[in-house]
Amino acid sequence: MITEYFINASVTPLESMDTLSPHEVEKLQDMSQGGLYRLFRQCCLAVLNTGSELDSTRTVLHRFREFDIRIKTKHRGVQLELINAPASAFVDGQLIQGIREHLFTVLRDLLYVGDELDQGSAGLNASGRITNTVFHILRHAAAMKPHVEPSLVVCWGGHSIQRDEYDYTKTVGYELGLRSFDICTGCGPGAMKGPMKGATIAHAKQRKHNPRYIGLTEPGIIAAESPNPIVNELVILPDIEKRLEAFVRLGHGIIVFPGGAGTAEEILYMLGILLHPQNQNVPFPLIFTGPKGSEAYFETVDRFIKATIGARAAQRYEIIVGDPHDVAVKMKAGLESVLAYRNQTDESYHYNWQLHIPHEFQQPFEPTHKEMAQLNLRKGQPDYILAAQLRKALSGIVAGNVKEPGVLAIEQYGPFELTGDKDIMHSLDELLSSFVEQKRMKINHEEYEPCYRIVNDEIVEKSKDVI
Amino acid sequence: MITEYFINASVTPLESMDTLSPHEVEKLQDMSQGGLYRLFRQCCLAVLNTGSELDSTRTVLHRFREFDIRIKTKHRGVQLELINAPASAFVDGQLIQGIREHLFTVLRDLLYVGDELDQGSAGLNASGRITNTVFHILRHAAAMKPHVEPSLVVCWGGHSIQRDEYDYTKTVGYELGLRSFDICTGCGPGAMKGPMKGATIAHAKQRKHNPRYIGLTEPGIIAAESPNPIVNELVILPDIEKRLEAFVRLGHGIIVFPGGAGTAEEILYMLGILLHPQNQNVPFPLIFTGPKGSEAYFETVDRFIKATIGARAAQRYEIIVGDPHDVAVKMKAGLESVLAYRNQTDESYHYNWQLHIPHEFQQPFEPTHKEMAQLNLRKGQPDYILAAQLRKALSGIVAGNVKEPGVLAIEQYGPFELTGDKDIMHSLDELLSSFVEQKRMKINHEEYEPCYRIVNDEIVEKSKDVI
Amino acid sequence: MITEYFINASVTPLESMDTLSPHEVEKLQDMSQGGLYRLFRQCCLAVLNTGSELDSTRTVLHRFREFDIRIKTKHRGVQLELINAPASAFVDGQLIQGIREHLFTVLRDLLYVGDELDQGSAGLNASGRITNTVFHILRHAAAMKPHVEPSLVVCWGGHSIQRDEYDYTKTVGYELGLRSFDICTGCGPGAMKGPMKGATIAHAKQRKHNPRYIGLTEPGIIAAESPNPIVNELVILPDIEKRLEAFVRLGHGIIVFPGGAGTAEEILYMLGILLHPQNQNVPFPLIFTGPKGSEAYFETVDRFIKATIGARAAQRYEIIVGDPHDVAVKMKAGLESVLAYRNQTDESYHYNWQLHIPHEFQQPFEPTHKEMAQLNLRKGQPDYILAAQLRKALSGIVAGNVKEPGVLAIEQYGPFELTGDKDIMHSLDELLSSFVEQKRMKINHEEYEPCYRIVNDEIVEKSKDVI
Amino acid sequence: MITEYFINASVTPLESMDTLSPHEVEKLQDMSQGGLYRLFRQCCLAVLNTGSELDSTRTVLHRFREFDIRIKTKHRGVQLELINAPASAFVDGQLIQGIREHLFTVLRDLLYVGDELDQGSAGLNASGRITNTVFHILRHAAAMKPHVEPSLVVCWGGHSIQRDEYDYTKTVGYELGLRSFDICTGCGPGAMKGPMKGATIAHAKQRKHNPRYIGLTEPGIIAAESPNPIVNELVILPDIEKRLEAFVRLGHGIIVFPGGAGTAEEILYMLGILLHPQNQNVPFPLIFTGPKGSEAYFETVDRFIKATIGARAAQRYEIIVGDPHDVAVKMKAGLESVLAYRNQTDESYHYNWQLHIPHEFQQPFEPTHKEMAQLNLRKGQPDYILAAQLRKALSGIVAGNVKEPGVLAIEQYGPFELTGDKDIMHSLDELLSSFVEQKRMKINHEEYEPCYRIVNDEIVEKSKDVI
Repeated sequence: MITEYFINASVTPLESMDTLSPHEVEKLQDMSQGGLYRLFRQCCLAVLNTGSELDSTRTVLHRFREFDIRIKTKHRGVQLELINAPASAFVDGQLIQGIREHLFTVLRDLLYVGDELDQGSAGLNASGRITNTVFHILRHAAAMKPHVEPSLVVCWGGHSIQRDEYDYTKTVGYELGLRSFDICTGCGPGAMKGPMKGATIAHAKQRKHNPRYIGLTEPGIIAAESPNPIVNELVILPDIEKRLEAFVRLGHGIIVFPGGAGTAEEILYMLGILLHPQNQNVPFPLIFTGPKGSEAYFETVDRFIKATIGARAAQRYEIIVGDPHDVAVKMKAGLESVLAYRNQTDESYHYNWQLHIPHEFQQPFEPTHKEMAQLNLRKGQPDYILAAQLRKALSGIVAGNVKEPGVLAIEQYGPFELTGDKDIMHSLDELLSSFVEQKRMKINHEEYEPCYRIVNDEIVEKSKDVI
Repeated sequence: MITEYFINASVTPLESMDTLSPHEVEKLQDMSQGGLYRLFRQCCLAVLNTGSELDSTRTVLHRFREFDIRIKTKHRGVQLELINAPASAFVDGQLIQGIREHLFTVLRDLLYVGDELDQGSAGLNASGRITNTVFHILRHAAAMKPHVEPSLVVCWGGHSIQRDEYDYTKTVGYELGLRSFDICTGCGPGAMKGPMKGATIAHAKQRKHNPRYIGLTEPGIIAAESPNPIVNELVILPDIEKRLEAFVRLGHGIIVFPGGAGTAEEILYMLGILLHPQNQNVPFPLIFTGPKGSEAYFETVDRFIKATIGARAAQRYEIIVGDPHDVAVKMKAGLESVLAYRNQTDESYHYNWQLHIPHEFQQPFEPTHKEMAQLNLRKGQPDYILAAQLRKALSGIVAGNVKEPGVLAIEQYGPFELTGDKDIMHSLDELLSSFVEQKRMKINHEEYEPCYRIVNDEIVEKSKDVI
Repeated sequence: MITEYFINASVTPLESMDTLSPHEVEKLQDMSQGGLYRLFRQCCLAVLNTGSELDSTRTVLHRFREFDIRIKTKHRGVQLELINAPASAFVDGQLIQGIREHLFTVLRDLLYVGDELDQGSAGLNASGRITNTVFHILRHAAAMKPHVEPSLVVCWGGHSIQRDEYDYTKTVGYELGLRSFDICTGCGPGAMKGPMKGATIAHAKQRKHNPRYIGLTEPGIIAAESPNPIVNELVILPDIEKRLEAFVRLGHGIIVFPGGAGTAEEILYMLGILLHPQNQNVPFPLIFTGPKGSEAYFETVDRFIKATIGARAAQRYEIIVGDPHDVAVKMKAGLESVLAYRNQTDESYHYNWQLHIPHEFQQPFEPTHKEMAQLNLRKGQPDYILAAQLRKALSGIVAGNVKEPGVLAIEQYGPFELTGDKDIMHSLDELLSSFVEQKRMKINHEEYEPCYRIVNDEIVEKSKDVI
Repeated sequence: MITEYFINASVTPLESMDTLSPHEVEKLQDMSQGGLYRLFRQCCLAVLNTGSELDSTRTVLHRFREFDIRIKTKHRGVQLELINAPASAFVDGQLIQGIREHLFTVLRDLLYVGDELDQGSAGLNASGRITNTVFHILRHAAAMKPHVEPSLVVCWGGHSIQRDEYDYTKTVGYELGLRSFDICTGCGPGAMKGPMKGATIAHAKQRKHNPRYIGLTEPGIIAAESPNPIVNELVILPDIEKRLEAFVRLGHGIIVFPGGAGTAEEILYMLGILLHPQNQNVPFPLIFTGPKGSEAYFETVDRFIKATIGARAAQRYEIIVGDPHDVAVKMKAGLESVLAYRNQTDESYHYNWQLHIPHEFQQPFEPTHKEMAQLNLRKGQPDYILAAQLRKALSGIVAGNVKEPGVLAIEQYGPFELTGDKDIMHSLDELLSSFVEQKRMKINHEEYEPCYRIVNDEIVEKSKDVI
């Protein structure tokens, strides 16, 4: 039985991380506003807190409020001093090696992003600069392996799912691993971890050298979704939008497992991109799957998509229930068409430059009352734009229901006011109610009360008549 | 759904196996009595039949009676042609890489053992020759890594155990893997596979380079206990006794999970060696463990050992119930004493030369009526000899109950006649009844009827009086 | 017999260089003023022109004026198209692998330096920024290997020396290689190549894994001193001062072979630094050596140093004639004291942060008449400052004698006017005459006429009296 | 200056050699007649005596008569204790790593050959057994790399040649290395070392990973021709004939540099095999080459071959004078035809099984008076047999002139009596005289007196008439 909760330890650096300049060490220790210390401490804590059951950033930060990390400034090499670190990161007093790597990954990415953002992008437009930045961060993290044929499967889904859904993600991971595919997720437990564990066993059987278990995260989410130590390539992107762009440019195909509203947002993000006219010929395998008994989640989502964005969107994905073998076989076929297309269009295998991501998808969305009121949830616009709008609406509603700043804002200013077609609003309503019913949202479903209201349907209808 | 059961395929060799001489290829193809073909085919089939539920050699051989393996004799390199091979060895028509390695391991070991047995042993006595042969086979298989500190944990136990027992072996393997220990088992499913799977996940987290999952098997058992493809070092020893010797000379500590009578035999083998006066100072961690709910197995075994061999034997092992973390911590402490002792006595880390294995333990035991009648199951003899005798008695009784030749012999000649102390016989009886009751023997426990009888207790008692 | 002089070829990239962004490719192709194309072409030509006898940049550029290099802009990877490249870089039409690596090194360093100069240095002073920049360039080039004990020996000396001097540098390199030391030079032939060739043979005998043959160059000199393909780590620093700083911070000891005035300049640079009060305890082995018959060079230099900077300077170096074994043994002892000192002062092994390099040594010196007139060649100042002044005077005189812009300036404005002590001026005069006599300067020694005159000795003498 | 000649040292084993059994250690220490100690000591001395000028086994053994090697018998690993070892093998008291490897190679090969000779050959005929044994020795030494396209060039020639000839072998080696060919020689100095040194420099430029410098030797010759430490794969064959067979089955082409009578013997061996009818379609590039000024050697040999074996033999080789580039280009073309032929005939790349070597070429030849008298040096027989007979005659005459047992036999029994055609005898005479004149034999050419006489020409002539 482990009875201690906090451990103090010194951590020697990975070789590749052991050539910091004194100036860089200073930056990491800088506790002033512009300094990196605060962010560095928070990310390190997240990395150390792996396997914990706490999935709220605030709880984590509170529980380990005594945690500190100091960098010894000796020239011989940086050494990290951990004070009151979570005991779960250690085995017999030794830090788990995978976690040690993650600590130095944090250091690598925070220093790089601090210094080089936008660097080398002179002459590019706003959208190009972001794409370029994501590329530079991934390249600096050695996450791009040229000449490797498309084999990186992104897995999305809930981090808090039921046992049988979790087991299912392991089996799918196993089938992917048997085909030597690499796995990329958003870190954290649940659907983020299961595929990696399954793939690890299969990769051992296939003697895969250097299997890749990539975790893409960002400072805002890492504390709540600590990377699993199986992740052997961790990259910390600066914000959620760059993280999403990294997923779709680095990955070659996506499998979505059941999740909650967050997963639905990711689906809308992906569909929005794939529906853009410039992307209509770009193959991108997208499979929604879960075990028997979890059909409801994807039925709900599928119904919502068809009812709002339209049937064309549904051609971009396939739903498979309870058949991991089939998921892997279909993904394999999908990756073959990706390979063929990249060869034909001279696109690199390691970064999907040609996929067009509209600038709107790259910009952070802050769900204030004002921003929510400006959303346009009507049909008479391109489907990919509607997808983007819906994603934002969903994001705002989730925030209003469960995220602290959102909940406070609702308390203070009343419900968000949304503008849009009646049936779209209805579908949105239905989608969220279903999630609540399926217990996929952290919300008391009996007392559930929408945090938004529809304000100007009539005006909308009228203005339509006028037009 | 996979619907095909048989697959034909050509398998190109591993590089290291690709320099056979034409003469060696001939031997493998030689279907005559002295030729290697028959054995080669049988072992290859076993290797290909991994994951199968069939645990009887005869059933396996019958089901895949159309299986054939041919060696293309081209000088450029051997190529194996598989005909009607089990489909479970393939993924989308491609042989699983781990199984491909195992196929060429079979080839390597059969050729080597065929040629070199006893070679280089001139001048050694019978026992020394066997120990030397085991050493040469293991060295040829590159299974000895000099200078690596003791970290190879042997796991024994049943290949057909319940779900919760299997999950428990995985968790123990995980805790061992977190401490970077390597795993060695006898191949096959159940307690042979679980620890390797658990360790694989932990090794990934610890970034262990070249983790070792060693499987030691022999031609007589391989078909019933196909090696799991996770096994990345497979060695085929020529017979059961050399396999047991390989376990105890190569391994640094042993964990025994619940099993059946076979597992009990292995325990008696190990105890017999450890009780030998020459070995009394040799540290050898030996832990019996299982989940809560499986206590009965080790209680039974423990009671039997104390009642027959004596309490001294019980000092050589520890029983831990339901605490994988404790198992790993205790094993770690045990390995540290092994390390200290080897350093102190200048013993190598890679082969336990100094452990004395009496010649009696190295010789095959054929449980005929005559051999059984000659066993001496009395107390007035050294405990390690009694352990050896009991192991043989157990082996014979198991054969008489469930193995085909044994069952036939009993039908033909009646029960085995055993000579020994009344209470020892009673303990043996009790042990077997318990196994039957716990459903740890493939036997109808309602109709269970002992296949032996005690013949000469009186005489024994008398002769004791005389002495 | 090779009869062709120019070859066209496509060169596929090294894997690690194969993830350029489209934006980077554009920069390399940008022929405008600010673009990288011109510099890129010139450096690539230098790299390809290895082994050539031409040691003038202008001649090289003229001879290969038809040379062009184009970058195919396909996303799949950059591909270099070489047009009219020097045939000597090829074997049977295949580019020598070492040269292929150098081509992509050029690409790597030009892109990095173009983008990142001064990057990450906010908050540092001018000198700190330069030191930081050199560090970043070297780290980006993976030239720093942490934790490797001091073993990098820098070799300086003439690129155009006699056969027996060249053979001597090979033997010294061989003795260094036998002790597993790595070699760092300024690229090019002569004393830059010999030590690497000798070390290569010795490293083969010592089975040294990953021996390092580091070449540090800069765009202004690379064309005249093409890197030898043995160089397996090429780094292109932005200017001569950063290149010198890279030598002394990366290297652990320096061996100087006979050379010309340029070599004397490097000696003065090194001595200037070592004489700085902050560096007086920093051990830095510095050995001047040549074969029997070449004593004159170092005798001249030694006499000059003692007569000008003073005897204290001479304690910082050792002169060894005709004894490669002794050179290596002394260097080994020197490196051991470097190791001890770095351990004691917690300095890293891979970059000599603590060596103080005054800002004056980091700034480029342009030998105009004005700059030359402002030099202060008098004794009444710290020796390290006098060393810096002398280095500049020497640099200017060499330019006035043999470098095109210098010669033209002298023709136009008359000789440089130097201010200083009579005996210092005399020593300088003598040093240069000796070099001319020893044929170590590309000058007609019969017609040699100094390009400078002394203007105000009297005033100086007087002002001394006054003081 | 090194002043010590003898050094004592402990040598720890290479990892791969560190799993000897106690029984093997005993064999190496066994000083009795059948034991390995004597041979082991002698070969180790040879390996340590590298770079020495002594080229006579007897002188070497005498000089280092105090040398001893002891094996510490600790189980932890063998450790070699060197007593009074040649100081030239050490750098600053440390054994050169290449020599350390060679020591353990000796151990590996002597143990293997001692144990396994003829093992695994049951059922093969005498010739097949020898070929199989050579294969097994090479495979055990890991000298066969399957799937590597033909690129192993054997270099033969004198170990005591002039400076310009030596430099020429280096340049040829350089040109071979530029084409990434590997080098195989008979160890020792001169033409055995030069090509390896040249290739080492070129391989560094071509970044060749794992370049191979194979040395094939045998106990009788190793003391006089110590392996150069550049040799990174040393194999000790049991006798001269197996060594020759190893050359021709392992190598893909042969370059012969000037040498003495021994080199001429090797040429005759090779031609004898290539002229065998079964080999007439087997491509085998064979080039004789030397610098300008050394033409005489090959002119002499060429004239001799044409005059005796006939013009057909001359089609099997090419003579190139003073053009290393051309030698390499021709060898490259030759290796391409070897590749094509092996592909076409399904022959492995790593061992030339299909080359027919008549049993006569595999058997040792002892040049006694009786054996010499039985030679048949007449034309009316297949050319390949005549080549074999001439090789033996040459071997005997060399022995009679310079080898101790031969010289003694001549003194005792008078000159050898040879039977053969007058013109063949005359050619042989001329060949030897030329060698003496060119100072290619260690003989006083003024007093040179043939050690043989021709006995029965008339009878031969007559018998010819009759036929």
